[in-house]
Amino acid sequence: MAAAPAAVDTAEAEHPSPRPRPLDALLSIPRGVAQVDFQPGSPTGLIFIIALFAGGWQFGVFGLLGTIVATVTAYLLGVRPGRVSTGLEGFCGTLIGVALVLYLGTSWTTAALVAGSAVAGSVLASAMRTVLTPYDLPALTAPFCVVVSVMVIGAPSFERVWAGHPANAPPSATDPGTAMTWTAFWHGLFNGIGQVFFQDTWYVGLIFLVGLAVASRRVAAAAGLASLIGLLVAWSFGAQTADIGAGLYGYNAVLTGIALTGTFVALSAAGVVYAVIGAATAAALTAGITTVFDVVGGHTLTWPFVLVTWVFLAAVPTLSRLRRAG
Amino acid sequence: MAAAPAAVDTAEAEHPSPRPRPLDALLSIPRGVAQVDFQPGSPTGLIFIIALFAGGWQFGVFGLLGTIVATVTAYLLGVRPGRVSTGLEGFCGTLIGVALVLYLGTSWTTAALVAGSAVAGSVLASAMRTVLTPYDLPALTAPFCVVVSVMVIGAPSFERVWAGHPANAPPSATDPGTAMTWTAFWHGLFNGIGQVFFQDTWYVGLIFLVGLAVASRRVAAAAGLASLIGLLVAWSFGAQTADIGAGLYGYNAVLTGIALTGTFVALSAAGVVYAVIGAATAAALTAGITTVFDVVGGHTLTWPFVLVTWVFLAAVPTLSRLRRAG
Amino acid sequence: MAAAPAAVDTAEAEHPSPRPRPLDALLSIPRGVAQVDFQPGSPTGLIFIIALFAGGWQFGVFGLLGTIVATVTAYLLGVRPGRVSTGLEGFCGTLIGVALVLYLGTSWTTAALVAGSAVAGSVLASAMRTVLTPYDLPALTAPFCVVVSVMVIGAPSFERVWAGHPANAPPSATDPGTAMTWTAFWHGLFNGIGQVFFQDTWYVGLIFLVGLAVASRRVAAAAGLASLIGLLVAWSFGAQTADIGAGLYGYNAVLTGIALTGTFVALSAAGVVYAVIGAATAAALTAGITTVFDVVGGHTLTWPFVLVTWVFLAAVPTLSRLRRAG
Repeated sequence: MAAAPAAVDTAEAEHPSPRPRPLDALLSIPRGVAQVDFQPGSPTGLIFIIALFAGGWQFGVFGLLGTIVATVTAYLLGVRPGRVSTGLEGFCGTLIGVALVLYLGTSWTTAALVAGSAVAGSVLASAMRTVLTPYDLPALTAPFCVVVSVMVIGAPSFERVWAGHPANAPPSATDPGTAMTWTAFWHGLFNGIGQVFFQDTWYVGLIFLVGLAVASRRVAAAAGLASLIGLLVAWSFGAQTADIGAGLYGYNAVLTGIALTGTFVALSAAGVVYAVIGAATAAALTAGITTVFDVVGGHTLTWPFVLVTWVFLAAVPTLSRLRRAG
Repeated sequence: MAAAPAAVDTAEAEHPSPRPRPLDALLSIPRGVAQVDFQPGSPTGLIFIIALFAGGWQFGVFGLLGTIVATVTAYLLGVRPGRVSTGLEGFCGTLIGVALVLYLGTSWTTAALVAGSAVAGSVLASAMRTVLTPYDLPALTAPFCVVVSVMVIGAPSFERVWAGHPANAPPSATDPGTAMTWTAFWHGLFNGIGQVFFQDTWYVGLIFLVGLAVASRRVAAAAGLASLIGLLVAWSFGAQTADIGAGLYGYNAVLTGIALTGTFVALSAAGVVYAVIGAATAAALTAGITTVFDVVGGHTLTWPFVLVTWVFLAAVPTLSRLRRAG
Repeated sequence: MAAAPAAVDTAEAEHPSPRPRPLDALLSIPRGVAQVDFQPGSPTGLIFIIALFAGGWQFGVFGLLGTIVATVTAYLLGVRPGRVSTGLEGFCGTLIGVALVLYLGTSWTTAALVAGSAVAGSVLASAMRTVLTPYDLPALTAPFCVVVSVMVIGAPSFERVWAGHPANAPPSATDPGTAMTWTAFWHGLFNGIGQVFFQDTWYVGLIFLVGLAVASRRVAAAAGLASLIGLLVAWSFGAQTADIGAGLYGYNAVLTGIALTGTFVALSAAGVVYAVIGAATAAALTAGITTVFDVVGGHTLTWPFVLVTWVFLAAVPTLSRLRRAG
C-alpha cells in the first residue's frame, strides 16, 4: 500500500540541508537550463546556454538570471538538496527569464519582474509537488506557465511595466497563407526544437538539437520526430504556414515526445505508439488554444505539453500495456 | 482505512486482458450509448440509437463512430475489460461524435476529427480515473467536455476544419423574448431530455424518455422532474423563452437529477431533497455560464452537470444525513 | 503513516449531530462573520457587523442573511457541529450576501439569489473539504469566490436579475492617473482592510481593524503591514491611484498576511519573511488578474488570496525552514 500525501511530503522535509560544495552549486545552473528538456547533464546545459546567446544576448542573460534566482530561492527555503543540485529547481526560472524579456523587453523593470517571478515560481513548484506527488506526476513546466500567464495577462494594465513594450504579433500576422513551402518545412523542424526556449531561428534550434544529442541520441531522435509530427498535424488542420515555419506547432510535441519516450514512460513498442499519439495530441491542443494566446504572439507557452503529458502519465496506471519509467 | 491512489491504480492494472466474446464486444457499443444517461442496458442503448437517427442520420452515424473508436482505443490500451464491456469507455465517444458533427458539419474531416478526439477522450478518461478515484468521484462526461471545448475553441482558426461550417446561433438569436408560452413549456420538458444528446426536437426527447423508462421507471421520473426544475429555474431568472423551449436549461438538470437519485447517492428523503437542490443548482450554473458558450449556440456541453455533480458527490462524506450509493 | 482521503472523511461523518444550545447557535452567526478574517471570537464578529452597517444598512442585512442561510444549511445537511458553532460554515455566506447586494442592488430578487447562493456555497464548502483535506489545505473563501464569480458572469444575461442594476466601474474610471497622493495613501491603508468586505470608506476599514485588535494585536499588526505591502507593490507596478486609494490592491495581501502569520504557518523569522513574500505575491496577482474582473468594478473577489495562500501552504511540507501551525 502506497503512502498518502502527507507522509510523502514529511519524509522529504526530513532531509538535512548540508552546505553544498562550490562546484556542485555552480553546475546546478547549467543543469537547470538542461532540465528544461529533461536532461540532467551540465554539458548539455552549457550548449543550451550557447544557443540562448546565439538567439540574442538578452535571452542568455535573463535566462541565467531566472535560473539563478529560482535555484537560490529553493536552496534558501530548504528544498531537498538533491533536487537543487540536479537543476530540478532551476528550469522554470530559465523559461521565466527568457519569456519575460521577450514579451516585456530588456529593462531593469523586466529584471526585477524576472527575479520576483522566479521566487513565486519556486514556491509554486514546491506547492505543486505536494499536490502531484500522490499521483506520481511531475510538475513539469507548469509553474513557469502559471507565472508567465499571469504576468502577460496583467502587464498591459500597468504603466511602469508595459511602457514601450515590443509588439508581439504571430508571424502569420504579416505573412498570411496556408500553402506549405520547403523553407517553412525545414525551418519549422528545427524551430520546433528551438521554440521550447522561445527561439525562432533555425540554427539556434540546431544548437539545441546538438545539446540533446550530446545527452542521448535517442532523445535527439525523439525530439526530431516529434517536431515533424507537430508540423504535420498543424499542416493537416490548415494552420498558417508562417506560424508552422516559426516552430509554433512543434515545441509542445517535442517536449511531450521526449517526456513519453523513456523519460517518464518505459520504452516499449506500445510506449512508442503512445508517445506518437501524445505528441500529435499536444500539437492538436496547441492548435486548439492558440487563439487564446494571441496577446503573446500566438505562443501558448508550454501549456499544451504540460496538460497533455499530465493526462498521458495519469492514464498509465489503468492501461495494462504501459509502464512508468524509473 | 482506504487505499491510497497508487495502490488502487496498480490493482486495476493487474487484471488480465482476455479476448472478449464477439456478442459481448458488439453489445458494448449500445451499452456505451446508454451510459450517457448512466444506464447499463443494451435495450436502452438501442432505443437511444434510434432516437439519434430520428434526430438526423448524421447524429446516429457519427455518434456510433465516436462510441466505437473510444471503446476500441480503451480495449487496445488495456483498460480493465469490465469497464469496456459495460460501455463505460464508450459514452464520451458518443457525445464527441454527436457534438462535432453538429458544430463542424458532415464531412470526412469531421469524421477524422471525431476519431482523433475519441482517442484523446479515451486517454483522458483513464487519466481522470487516476485522479478522481481517491475521492470516490466518477469522471462523468468530463473527458467529452474537455475535448469538445478545445475543438470548438480552436476550430475557427483552421481553414480545413471550419470551412463552410454551419452557423450555431442560439434559438433566441432569431426569436428573442422572455414571455413563456405553452408550446415552449412542453417542448422544453422533452427537449431537456433530448439535449443531453444535443437534440432539440420534442419527439426525439420522448424516444430518449422511453429508453430511460425501459431501464427504470424511477430514472425516467427523475429525468422528467429534473427537466421541469431546470425549466422553472431558467424561467424565474428571466431566460430567453426560445432557449428554454429548446431544452438548453434542462439537460444539465436532467443528468444531475439522475446522478443524485439512486445512481451515486443512496435513495432517501434527504437524498431526494439534495437531488432537487442539485438539479436546480445545475440549471442556475447553466444560466450562469451560458454566455461563455455563445460560439457553440449557447450549448454549455455538459459542464454544469459535471461540475455540480462532482461538488454534490464530494460533499456527501462530510454530510451525515446522506450516503453514497453502491 | 497518514490516513488516505476516504478515511479522513468517513471519520468526520461519524460524529453525532446533537441539538445545539440556543445561545451557542445564535453566537455562531457573529462568529461566522469574524471567520472571514480567520478570527473565532463573537466580540470581533459583532464589531465587524457594526462596520458593515456603518458601510450601509444593506451590507449588514444581506451579509447577515447570507451568514444565517449558510450556517443553517450546513446544520441541516449534518455537517460536524464543531464546524457549525465556530462559524466556519458561515463566513462564505457573509461575503456572498455583501457581494451580491453590491453588484445586483437591494431587491427581493437579490435576497432570493443570496439565499440560493449561500446554499450552493455551503455544499461547495463541504465538497472542497473532501478534496483539500488530504493536502491539509483549508477551503478559505474559495466557495464564495466560485459562487459569486458564476453569479456575476451570468447575471447580465437575465432580465429579472440584472434589470436596473447599479453601475460597477472601478474608481479609476472616473478619476484616472498614477501619481500617488497622501490621501490615497492613508485611505488605501485602511480600505485595504475594509475591502475584504467590499467596503471602500476609510473609517469602516478602521472599525474592522479595531475588531481585529480585539481578537489579537499581532493579527491587527499583520493586517496593517500587509495592507502597506499590497499598496506599495501596486504603486511600484504603476497601478491607478484611485484604485489603490480604494484599497483594491490591499485586501488580498491583508488576508494572505494574516493567513501566513501564525494562523496556518507557525510563527518564526523565516515564517515572517515567507508571509511578506506571500502578501506581495497576492498583491502582484491581484494586479495581474484585475483586468479580468472589470465587469465587477475591478474587484477580484478574494481569488488572489485563495490561490496564493493555497500555493504557499501546499509548499510548506517540502520546505524544511517552515512548519505549519496547529
